[in-house]
Amino acid sequence: MARVLNLITDIEGVLVGNATNFKLGSGVTVIVFDEPATASGAVLGGAPGGRDTALLDPSMTVGAVDAFVFSGGSAFGLDAAGGVQAGLREAGRGFPVGDVKVPIVPQAILMDLLNGGDKDWGLQSPYREMGYEAFKAATNGRFALGTIGAGAGATTASFKGGLGSASAVTNTGLKIAAIVAVNALGSATVGEGPHFWSAPFEQNAEFGGLGLPSLISDADTCMRLKGMNTAATTIGAIVTDAQLTKQEAHRLAIMGHDGFARALLPAHLPLDGDTVFAASTGKKPRPDLPAFLELCHFATTVMARAIARGVYEATALPVAGAQQAWQTRYPDRARSPKQGDIA
Amino acid sequence: MARVLNLITDIEGVLVGNATNFKLGSGVTVIVFDEPATASGAVLGGAPGGRDTALLDPSMTVGAVDAFVFSGGSAFGLDAAGGVQAGLREAGRGFPVGDVKVPIVPQAILMDLLNGGDKDWGLQSPYREMGYEAFKAATNGRFALGTIGAGAGATTASFKGGLGSASAVTNTGLKIAAIVAVNALGSATVGEGPHFWSAPFEQNAEFGGLGLPSLISDADTCMRLKGMNTAATTIGAIVTDAQLTKQEAHRLAIMGHDGFARALLPAHLPLDGDTVFAASTGKKPRPDLPAFLELCHFATTVMARAIARGVYEATALPVAGAQQAWQTRYPDRARSPKQGDIA
Repeated sequence: MARVLNLITDIEGVLVGNATNFKLGSGVTVIVFDEPATASGAVLGGAPGGRDTALLDPSMTVGAVDAFVFSGGSAFGLDAAGGVQAGLREAGRGFPVGDVKVPIVPQAILMDLLNGGDKDWGLQSPYREMGYEAFKAATNGRFALGTIGAGAGATTASFKGGLGSASAVTNTGLKIAAIVAVNALGSATVGEGPHFWSAPFEQNAEFGGLGLPSLISDADTCMRLKGMNTAATTIGAIVTDAQLTKQEAHRLAIMGHDGFARALLPAHLPLDGDTVFAASTGKKPRPDLPAFLELCHFATTVMARAIARGVYEATALPVAGAQQAWQTRYPDRARSPKQGDIA
Repeated sequence: MARVLNLITDIEGVLVGNATNFKLGSGVTVIVFDEPATASGAVLGGAPGGRDTALLDPSMTVGAVDAFVFSGGSAFGLDAAGGVQAGLREAGRGFPVGDVKVPIVPQAILMDLLNGGDKDWGLQSPYREMGYEAFKAATNGRFALGTIGAGAGATTASFKGGLGSASAVTNTGLKIAAIVAVNALGSATVGEGPHFWSAPFEQNAEFGGLGLPSLISDADTCMRLKGMNTAATTIGAIVTDAQLTKQEAHRLAIMGHDGFARALLPAHLPLDGDTVFAASTGKKPRPDLPAFLELCHFATTVMARAIARGVYEATALPVAGAQQAWQTRYPDRARSPKQGDIA
């Protein structure tokens, strides 16, 4: 029987590992594929930071990746993929070029350097080591959400951000899932209240089951930002078990960005480096057109759900001036996290 | 005093002209700038059709346009910009190159060849003439919405599509507005009911004032498409009077696409050629960063509103098998169109 953890690890052959440093107020999340996965991605934010992302364009030659990496640390965090590559090399993984194998590990970063954590790391950033650590910790089972991995240092305009994930099964039995580190300049909640913008797509009260407010006023939809500094960027990935082309994976990345637009107000600002990767493990057959269109639709809704879960599951960082968590502000509205109850 | 028509012509120096052929079930909309406007654009749908859109990339040399054209007719409709160029040339307009002037007229098309209209036009498509006609009809005042211009032949999954527009003023007094021809494969309304996805952003009951449903069920958020043919594509433009760079205009185009994602479920499918142009007339000063971020936010919300208005204002085409209009389905929920009542 298929596991239903409501996590991206519901997709066979997908492993997730996290490394978290609470004193640093940051961390690394790695998504590892047990075999190279057809992959693409799309950067729609205005201030991205990435590593090996150019190859994700459908016009480029390399079509499959070994892993995706999300990390905090802004551009310093780009060291993390190096640690993941070290782990993959140790495991004998990588794109074969003559006698060598080169692990293909696209990465995106988010900016969490201003969240109160201790960023005085000297000459050597901690991200490469955290990348290796996250790779070694990767599991194909349950993993925690919220203030962990690349979501550890994440914030939003209204509440502590975090790592979110969600999964779905289409009517034709294909699986699709999202994972996301939510660090938006905008807000995942409506106005000053507890309701998530993603509520229309919520499954089994996975982020509190509050629905939308009965009335959404102009005051609720005016722009709310965490500030004018650039401590922003939401990074996510969509993965399906359907066999897709690189072009089709690229489409899922765009559809995942629509999940950003549904879940965050606003998303994709000039100070957000919003990036979505997408991959196909290919362990299920190629979908026909209607089945692929439904995958596209689910890419949007599953990403919107994952974003809300990232904020809903977050806890405040143990540092001075840390941003409040949703569950601290609304303890009576929250339930204990219950992963794995999706139908 | 500034006019408040809740139309893109609320922006000084912006004219809109429409040409409509009900028998054909199609038409052309032209947005003309009284002076060359700094412009960019972004194609996020998977099946676009366009003309002179490559120059809109921020890396390209030409930075200003004379007009934007939206038309029906799928790739045949790309003749329309030729008619607009003829009108602009007649008016002495265009990018100077030595002794000649070349009118710069990016265009996007939507697919309305399967809507029941008479498409047997023989060797010469009617779109070039309609482009010229729309240009000559361009006004800086009130223009009709719904089944007109490029929205004439438009449809959606649930109701007749159409031409929509909406405008807003930011807290710093900058104007921003959208115009859009809504021909999505997906739906602008929630489930099988009358409520628009854009409701959180509605101003002054501009599309019926119904709000969102009190409960949005899983059945409401499952994928609804108008069919598996490719009669799709939503095309829009965002215009502001703030002085922007081409790079900043590009950001507004992306933010406008977030309005697609908020207003349509799903948007940006592989069969949608979803395209957003953006332009700055530059008649107001350059915004500082907070003011620009607010413009970005409004680009999303004003586009979401324009999309709902396009569907709300539409009437059925006078052809056999024409798709039902929202106001025909919900005559008791509709009010007579009252443009110009925005605060």
